[in-house]
Amino acid sequence: MCTSYWIKNFQIISVAILILLTGNSRSVAVPRQEPYEEAPVVHSPQLLVELKQIQQAALGSDYAFRQLAVLTAGIGPRLSGSVQAQNAVNYVASELRRLGLDVRLEKVLVPHWIRGEEKAELVKFPGQMSGMAQRIVLTTLGGSIATPPTGLTAEVVTVNSFEELEALGRANVEGKIVLFNRRFDEQMAAQGFGVEAYRQMVPYRTRGPSAAARLGAVAALVRSAGGSNYRLPHAGFMRYSNDAARIPAAALTGEDADLIAGLSKQGPVRLYLTLTPQTLPDAESYNVVADLKGSEHPEQIVIVSGHLDSWDLGTGAIDDGAGVVMAMHTVQVLRELNLHPKRSIRVIAWMSEEFGGIGGNAYAKSHQAEIANHIAAIESDHGAGHPLGFSIKASQTVRPMLEPVSLVLQGSGAGLTRFTEEIETDISPLAEAGVPCFGLWQDGRTYFNYHHTAADTLDKVVPKELAENVAIMAVLAYALANLSQPLPH
Amino acid sequence: MCTSYWIKNFQIISVAILILLTGNSRSVAVPRQEPYEEAPVVHSPQLLVELKQIQQAALGSDYAFRQLAVLTAGIGPRLSGSVQAQNAVNYVASELRRLGLDVRLEKVLVPHWIRGEEKAELVKFPGQMSGMAQRIVLTTLGGSIATPPTGLTAEVVTVNSFEELEALGRANVEGKIVLFNRRFDEQMAAQGFGVEAYRQMVPYRTRGPSAAARLGAVAALVRSAGGSNYRLPHAGFMRYSNDAARIPAAALTGEDADLIAGLSKQGPVRLYLTLTPQTLPDAESYNVVADLKGSEHPEQIVIVSGHLDSWDLGTGAIDDGAGVVMAMHTVQVLRELNLHPKRSIRVIAWMSEEFGGIGGNAYAKSHQAEIANHIAAIESDHGAGHPLGFSIKASQTVRPMLEPVSLVLQGSGAGLTRFTEEIETDISPLAEAGVPCFGLWQDGRTYFNYHHTAADTLDKVVPKELAENVAIMAVLAYALANLSQPLPH
Repeated sequence: MCTSYWIKNFQIISVAILILLTGNSRSVAVPRQEPYEEAPVVHSPQLLVELKQIQQAALGSDYAFRQLAVLTAGIGPRLSGSVQAQNAVNYVASELRRLGLDVRLEKVLVPHWIRGEEKAELVKFPGQMSGMAQRIVLTTLGGSIATPPTGLTAEVVTVNSFEELEALGRANVEGKIVLFNRRFDEQMAAQGFGVEAYRQMVPYRTRGPSAAARLGAVAALVRSAGGSNYRLPHAGFMRYSNDAARIPAAALTGEDADLIAGLSKQGPVRLYLTLTPQTLPDAESYNVVADLKGSEHPEQIVIVSGHLDSWDLGTGAIDDGAGVVMAMHTVQVLRELNLHPKRSIRVIAWMSEEFGGIGGNAYAKSHQAEIANHIAAIESDHGAGHPLGFSIKASQTVRPMLEPVSLVLQGSGAGLTRFTEEIETDISPLAEAGVPCFGLWQDGRTYFNYHHTAADTLDKVVPKELAENVAIMAVLAYALANLSQPLPH
Repeated sequence: MCTSYWIKNFQIISVAILILLTGNSRSVAVPRQEPYEEAPVVHSPQLLVELKQIQQAALGSDYAFRQLAVLTAGIGPRLSGSVQAQNAVNYVASELRRLGLDVRLEKVLVPHWIRGEEKAELVKFPGQMSGMAQRIVLTTLGGSIATPPTGLTAEVVTVNSFEELEALGRANVEGKIVLFNRRFDEQMAAQGFGVEAYRQMVPYRTRGPSAAARLGAVAALVRSAGGSNYRLPHAGFMRYSNDAARIPAAALTGEDADLIAGLSKQGPVRLYLTLTPQTLPDAESYNVVADLKGSEHPEQIVIVSGHLDSWDLGTGAIDDGAGVVMAMHTVQVLRELNLHPKRSIRVIAWMSEEFGGIGGNAYAKSHQAEIANHIAAIESDHGAGHPLGFSIKASQTVRPMLEPVSLVLQGSGAGLTRFTEEIETDISPLAEAGVPCFGLWQDGRTYFNYHHTAADTLDKVVPKELAENVAIMAVLAYALANLSQPLPH
């Protein structure tokens, strides 16, 4: 009871202080009244004042947006293994050094896949006039092998699920091109569950080609995993199983998938396909790891991060230049305010997330011995829309320890928290090892319209919303770095 | 007064008849009560009953949509002078013959321009890393000449208007690439004035290249004339002036225009550009002209029409396969209902509208002697969104003659009329010659997001809305063909 009493009073006092200091009563909501019997007092009034300073500084600066302009307009797409990805590593490292951080490049071997040419046409289909072909718009899946140089031509068989594919059996699949026509659930995305809608699509892109190959298919196509209807193919990674032949794979636009599925109902559809990607030997690349040393517990680490690599069709602004520049801006704000976290805040720009979280896995492995010193890890990897708050993958017991942080974050309309099983890719190996992990939670209703397409460009990021995201990441990171006792692992 | 009295009573009686016949009181609004002193009584109660039948039949049929599937999925893009355009001519002619119409192909010489390759990169720009280029997404303007086969490279100078170009003068333009960065007014489009927003853009696309060339520019780029932000270039026609050198010209996506304009503010931006279009000798092509003969005045003609050619990036569903199939469905409905218009209803599928209304001009010229017999001309060329009603280019005195038609059209939510100075391209030469002309008036708030892009595909047309449009065209055409006296020229 005693603890609960103090927490309640602490919250009321801190709210009063915030009102006095900021003159902004709108940003302070009525604190939750549930008693937290076991919750320790971990935020000093001074910390809450500093958090409010950090928030205001982040909201008032365009540093993150200017950094994002460098990554997108200056450097461009940053495909794993590419020269641009290396340029980005060098740039982020030098900028973080300029901010006074202790910067290391931690080597990661990454896939080095190059897109090449992409050409597809329907060469035979019901209702066809005078043998004229119909152009099909698609993009090769990352990791796919090439077709023969002169292309391949085969009939397309359309399925909506793995179950439908299995039901067809080898007799109906052998020698054909399988189109997985699973449709992105736009309604789900419109209701704020874009990530969940996307996760329903991903197995078809990653595992579909091998599932088709097991039944003798000669190529696999997947309907693009995204929500717009502007004839844009969505790129993405696929993975070959060892128990199946490797066949070429590409993602069609929704329009082209509809066209083929519609025609297939009327009669045989034959597709000509040329894809000329190359898989080169794995390339040496780097996670950029930069520490702002803690004043009391420098060995204890709070990670702020985003991934630096991107797909190659757009310039990787929302996926995930935004996450990287939020992390950069987090430490820039602390330097500017001359605030010294008690624990170290570590910026990480992850490499090769798009090919399956390569950099994140490499980090968790090479830092295995120090996992206990990782107090928390934060990543943003769902764009830069207006933030609602953050997701948590940790014990439910952390909630009361985070309540005052949420209270501060409400000042930028982003005080919500939610517990989740699925945290951002790069930090999920840390989460598996018991590190409390946090993802930024944005309004992502349009994110999957642009994600992995040519339209993922700087103009999709609203500077004010990007700054709101920085405020969340910086406030959360600083609070975690200054808790009087760490979150439970 | 007498006339006014009869009109009022006529309206009340006809409303009562409609309610009795259709059992649908929702479709009948209270008639306007303004007296039409001079308006003649031109609609019989029988005609109104037939109009209601036509409307119901159109709304209940998917004939137009099935025809549109043939034009888009079966035939594909129908660029002026192409084999697909010829396939479309043959198909529409044969289908109209099947419906029992008297079909002629009227020869038109049309531009025969082929797109070729399109490649552009920023090769030098502020903030550039290690000499890496940035890909630029664009599409060659219809009618443009090619660059040298190995491309050209020059600095880009950005202007927002012709005035800004003139102010720069030859000293700042010579040897450079001019980017006309006039922005499509999305707000205007969202408010229902998409056509007006588009018209503000067109002069830059059509006349911009020669304006730039007059000051010594080596190429011209225009920001795409459209409203989406999915990195889609919008194709379109340009025209060289005789007083300027011919320079290559292309349309950039909005994103790429923003990128260049933003970088140009920081320092010189150099662009590498290769375009390989070809202009072949003019090709023989055709307007498809098909008559459903009038029972009383076969020599008098009411035209229903759309244009059959399209741009080549998409499949020309909304621009303007939709208009053509509305006209086809108009006569199909009359045949099905065994209704015989008193005047002839003439279906025209116009050719080469996209290169400046070639087919429409040719028709007006070759039919000059019979213009007086053209009672009215209708075209739909703004997509297939839910129709609001129709636009009129004619004397204001026609309004009371059309009031009962509007009353019937309210049954599909489309009873509005508006007078306009700018009527659809193909029929505007007829309008100039005094023929009362009508355009379908659709909800076009998203039309210019897709217009002239790769995303102009069948899925953008909602079958029910297409049928609503057919109902408007068919009701209006039949009413005009059966007026007891023609509209004044």
